Amino acid sequence: MDNLSSKLLENAVNQLSKLPGVGKKSALRLALFLLKQSESDIELFTASLLTMKKNLLYCTQCHNLSDAEICEICANSQRNRMQICVVQDIRDVIAIENTQQYKGVYHVLGGIISPMEGVGPGDLNIQSLLDKCDHHEVSELIFAMPATPEGDTTAYYIYKHIKDKVLKVTLIARGIGIGEELEYADELTLGRSLLARTDFEGIFR
Amino acid sequence: MDNLSSKLLENAVNQLSKLPGVGKKSALRLALFLLKQSESDIELFTASLLTMKKNLLYCTQCHNLSDAEICEICANSQRNRMQICVVQDIRDVIAIENTQQYKGVYHVLGGIISPMEGVGPGDLNIQSLLDKCDHHEVSELIFAMPATPEGDTTAYYIYKHIKDKVLKVTLIARGIGIGEELEYADELTLGRSLLARTDFEGIFR
Repeated sequence: MDNLSSKLLENAVNQLSKLPGVGKKSALRLALFLLKQSESDIELFTASLLTMKKNLLYCTQCHNLSDAEICEICANSQRNRMQICVVQDIRDVIAIENTQQYKGVYHVLGGIISPMEGVGPGDLNIQSLLDKCDHHEVSELIFAMPATPEGDTTAYYIYKHIKDKVLKVTLIARGIGIGEELEYADELTLGRSLLARTDFEGIFR
Repeated sequence: MDNLSSKLLENAVNQLSKLPGVGKKSALRLALFLLKQSESDIELFTASLLTMKKNLLYCTQCHNLSDAEICEICANSQRNRMQICVVQDIRDVIAIENTQQYKGVYHVLGGIISPMEGVGPGDLNIQSLLDKCDHHEVSELIFAMPATPEGDTTAYYIYKHIKDKVLKVTLIARGIGIGEELEYADELTLGRSLLARTDFEGIFR
């Protein structure tokens, strides 16, 4: 991939290959695709990225990405501010929103505690969550972090600090995925789903 | 993917998902990755794409992408201008250049004849190739098009028009790929490689 015969193309390919999951070959494919677009289309494309970077804010309440100081979810009076769902990342907010099963608000940590990657509690939006629990009446804190040791550590760290200040602390259910075959589930998940078995009538009511 | 809670992010995701092979989920991943970069990095990124689109030219000789009117390959006095390799696409030029086995020049058709996709000879850079064969002395024309019916049709169409004007017309070899097992080769390729078998000593000399 050293013989692109054009510095302009090479430069674009180098920039595109910085994107995650884009190698040199894909970058060339993307560059040639963009070349086929009109100049105004490329201007729209690049402007959307620059404008996003320049103007996107983090919600001062929940640290979700937002166009305004307070995000749409926190600003929505229909949402229950007493119920806070703690997530690792903005992508998790989007995933939960897409289920349309949740009417509380969020708190985005911006990562999880991971000694291996050098991420400690101080690097995350944890203090502002503790403050919320101190100052506001929080009726329920829902941990919706990854079901990994790091996710559990983060949940436990927060739990230690707020257990006396919050009425109810919950964790999203772990078990067999909908549509999943038992034989393909790992033992930990299957074991957990047995231990945490739920009342049959409660589900199909 | 309807609840991005930010029009700025949504706009960037929509633009990114126009790229080939990038769905909404990957576009979100790319947008969040870009958000983590510095503003000047994103400016470099977007400028490289715009500058490429605005300034990249097609070589007037071979239709390869080029920073100047004549591309580096055509402008290189070390290359044999009497030997022309006919390819479908600029990517094929790059692929052949990477082999470092070719010292002639190229002619980029910009596609191949495909009645199914409504591409006829008039849509491709064929006339300029015929003109070259008319006006210059071409010693060898090498067809390096895909080994498909469309590639063969295109080669045959050009061959009909230039067979009396060019000293030698060749086709890149078809056969078993280097490192390929015979049992996994398709019958057509294997049959062809038997018919076009080459002198053993000629290869290992």
